[in-house]
Amino acid sequence: MTLIDPATVRTVGVIGTGTIGASWSAAFLAAGYQVRANDPAPDAEAKLFEFVQQAWPALEKLGAPALPIDRLSFHATPEEAVSGADIVQENAPERVELKQELLARIDRALPPDRVIASSTSGITATTLQVRMAHPRRLVIGHPFNPPHMMPLVEVVGGAATAPETVDWAMTFYRHCAKHPIRIAREKPGHIANRLQAALWREVVSLVADGVASIEDVDAAVAYGPGLRWAIFGPSTIFHLAGGEGGLAHFLDHLAQPMQSWWNSLGNPDLTDPLLRRKLVEAMDKAMANRSIEDLAAERDKSLLGILEVLEAVRGPNAGGSE
Amino acid sequence: MTLIDPATVRTVGVIGTGTIGASWSAAFLAAGYQVRANDPAPDAEAKLFEFVQQAWPALEKLGAPALPIDRLSFHATPEEAVSGADIVQENAPERVELKQELLARIDRALPPDRVIASSTSGITATTLQVRMAHPRRLVIGHPFNPPHMMPLVEVVGGAATAPETVDWAMTFYRHCAKHPIRIAREKPGHIANRLQAALWREVVSLVADGVASIEDVDAAVAYGPGLRWAIFGPSTIFHLAGGEGGLAHFLDHLAQPMQSWWNSLGNPDLTDPLLRRKLVEAMDKAMANRSIEDLAAERDKSLLGILEVLEAVRGPNAGGSE
Repeated sequence: MTLIDPATVRTVGVIGTGTIGASWSAAFLAAGYQVRANDPAPDAEAKLFEFVQQAWPALEKLGAPALPIDRLSFHATPEEAVSGADIVQENAPERVELKQELLARIDRALPPDRVIASSTSGITATTLQVRMAHPRRLVIGHPFNPPHMMPLVEVVGGAATAPETVDWAMTFYRHCAKHPIRIAREKPGHIANRLQAALWREVVSLVADGVASIEDVDAAVAYGPGLRWAIFGPSTIFHLAGGEGGLAHFLDHLAQPMQSWWNSLGNPDLTDPLLRRKLVEAMDKAMANRSIEDLAAERDKSLLGILEVLEAVRGPNAGGSE
Repeated sequence: MTLIDPATVRTVGVIGTGTIGASWSAAFLAAGYQVRANDPAPDAEAKLFEFVQQAWPALEKLGAPALPIDRLSFHATPEEAVSGADIVQENAPERVELKQELLARIDRALPPDRVIASSTSGITATTLQVRMAHPRRLVIGHPFNPPHMMPLVEVVGGAATAPETVDWAMTFYRHCAKHPIRIAREKPGHIANRLQAALWREVVSLVADGVASIEDVDAAVAYGPGLRWAIFGPSTIFHLAGGEGGLAHFLDHLAQPMQSWWNSLGNPDLTDPLLRRKLVEAMDKAMANRSIEDLAAERDKSLLGILEVLEAVRGPNAGGSE
């Protein structure tokens, strides 16, 4: 299988333009590509253009030019949208049969030297590629919501995916000014969702046990280690905590307490209705004076500012592992 | 027991001026207090003044006035340092007997209407207060390193601590422009270190199993959820992910996948020398081109910028739970 040179990509097909697909469209436009979109919802075209227009001011602050709206087009069918596309990003609802059928349709319509990426968070590439004639070019490129702002893209292939497809996707997402990471094999939740789950399990355990309020446990992250995790990941932070001796020195001193904390971590049951009720009531009480709209505005404004700071410190496009 | 009004605090005794105590000194000076310090190391006084001077430009960017160096004094003994102090922050090495003896000395020298706070991360207040004549006024005020920059302070009492001492400390740290959280009962690692441990366990598990490289697992945090955790804690982030339906709606859709991720989280053994070697070698390889000094400079510059952004969005002194 020979794939096209990722440096020659000009046009991205975006199939499914809900929350993720619309945000991907903005990201691809900001990266300088043509975007050909399709979605079966009756109001999808208007919503897509509206989303891109609303998202653009933030992208301009991060260095994008004025919105090149003429490079975005909406098409009546997936086949029409992927016609002329150099790469396709699929963002259909998380239903196995729907995605399998859609990917088979895209597969028939797109020349086999083009990669098809799926944004799925919960279905494996191995499952998605079973009905494709060219399963080797199917890869997961799982963004972190919203993709037009968040740098992370998790890249992982399925059993039938060619290694060069994974390489290609890594290069392409770097061209999109994203920070792709390479996952060697399929895991439930990929990596970022697993890490979120691991952290939240202890959050839930502490709240359920009454060790602290839900807002104080949240504050223990946001006013403490969360401030560093926006800069470096947990292992690098511990490497730095070791001073000149790095992670080895850190482990000399902290492997034992760390292991004892691991041994004492909680293991709550999220299917327990009483626990669910406790969490929801605690959160409603904590957020009594804050609307979702207000919180979302603070999150988005802060996120943009943080991304600007990090880009200024690191320099643009610093990201992306090999 | 009647404690002095926290609003009348003018002078803080800082006992132990290593990394944590020196940084606390800068924080207390920035909050407008007199600081009376003591440490037995022969070069402690010079190092303290040097640290405060080096830390100050960052504090000025966060709103502190020019360094009031005349408000910092160094004293030959703990007794002399706490003479006239309205609150004492103890930061001695993490050795039980040393701290017990030191706290007993401070306890004898300080009027009983003043709070004594310990920065300990690993010893309980219940253990620390056994040799004190007035154990009711001993509380843990555990900062997140470096205390002059990080807002989080974890406040927890021991078996003999009076509830009003905990209340007092919460109020005092809020006066210091910190974000204190109240921990209802002693837990190994307080809260923030447990949360870091919970996250890192899955990081180590994924690296140990070869699912991704140590730098890619780190990137899965720093370019993804870590960017949000600097803004809100994990529960608020999920509350927001639920849209207008909040955490309840989030759980309707994600409690089952979350529980399945929880069930599949790894449980590595950090005392295994092979695992230790694997982690250290992976980190050394990942950081081959970056010195600790270079990484620390990027962390500190980014952290300052992020704190400036968050303060601008939230307004100054927004923090602190009741």
